[in-house]
Amino acid sequence: MSAYDMQKTDLATRLARIEGQVRGIARMVEEDRYCIEILDQVSAITKALQQVSLGLLHDHLEHCVVDAVHAGGSQAQEKIDEATSAIARLMRS
Amino acid sequence: MSAYDMQKTDLATRLARIEGQVRGIARMVEEDRYCIEILDQVSAITKALQQVSLGLLHDHLEHCVVDAVHAGGSQAQEKIDEATSAIARLMRS
Amino acid sequence: MSAYDMQKTDLATRLARIEGQVRGIARMVEEDRYCIEILDQVSAITKALQQVSLGLLHDHLEHCVVDAVHAGGSQAQEKIDEATSAIARLMRS
Amino acid sequence: MSAYDMQKTDLATRLARIEGQVRGIARMVEEDRYCIEILDQVSAITKALQQVSLGLLHDHLEHCVVDAVHAGGSQAQEKIDEATSAIARLMRS
Repeated sequence: MSAYDMQKTDLATRLARIEGQVRGIARMVEEDRYCIEILDQVSAITKALQQVSLGLLHDHLEHCVVDAVHAGGSQAQEKIDEATSAIARLMRS
Repeated sequence: MSAYDMQKTDLATRLARIEGQVRGIARMVEEDRYCIEILDQVSAITKALQQVSLGLLHDHLEHCVVDAVHAGGSQAQEKIDEATSAIARLMRS
Repeated sequence: MSAYDMQKTDLATRLARIEGQVRGIARMVEEDRYCIEILDQVSAITKALQQVSLGLLHDHLEHCVVDAVHAGGSQAQEKIDEATSAIARLMRS
Repeated sequence: MSAYDMQKTDLATRLARIEGQVRGIARMVEEDRYCIEILDQVSAITKALQQVSLGLLHDHLEHCVVDAVHAGGSQAQEKIDEATSAIARLMRS
């Protein structure tokens, strides 16, 4: 089993934690906490979201892309192009 | 008034929307939606968080850093170093 | 043919152009050009490097990963984990 | 003196090294080196460029922005907006 594998329950737990972190930032803003502290919390959420992206992407390569390769024809090419475009959007975000 | 100015209420609105987007992703995972669609939603949240960071950073430069420059002494230097470190963490996240 | 396909000669051309852009920045620093102008040139190079990364990554998925899937066994899994790790490093850089 | 201060000679040295790294990648492509190895070299260059950006940005805040604050009037506001826009472009690149 790969280090990147995320079960649905694992993804759900991570997303619930991220939701809590976003609420935490709203509270920090409300309490006029120091900007730099808030900025670091935003960086922490961005990193947690990146881990979610990598888990989803790994799962996509391992299942959808591998299946398309086995199916043969133009599907593999299409799936690889689509995955590359999604990675491009992640790198830019 | 600068395009980057974010009132506290504006920040609160943006964070509430981001919280809703995170919940939306949890729902998409639950419903087994297509990975690439979910990945694009994660990219959208990352971009929304970046806008929040830029608003906070602008506010920090405009208030804390400007005040430290007026106060003079080593404070301005310290605040500028601290802001640069925070920008470094944002760029890496 | 995919929009991401980069021939070896295309890659060589892009890298030669990036090398020229880096030399251009060195010249701008030498001539004391305005910081913001130099920063924007650095952003332009980073974007050009990202395009190179995406081309290399697409090529890797299309050749090495697809070959490993056809070979079967644990190789596909290993290649997909390795690609995911490389994407993680690109996203963080 | 701040950890982010970069003398002109330091910047020139870093840029010359980056130029050499780009040439190194062109050589790796020419020699058909393994994609993942090349990708990691691209990540290394992106990180080196980020360090250059942070040095330039710190210098900009410490000199141009601080001078504008001392000059007073609308100049400080304009410089801070301009710096925030440049940081936004760096974060997206």
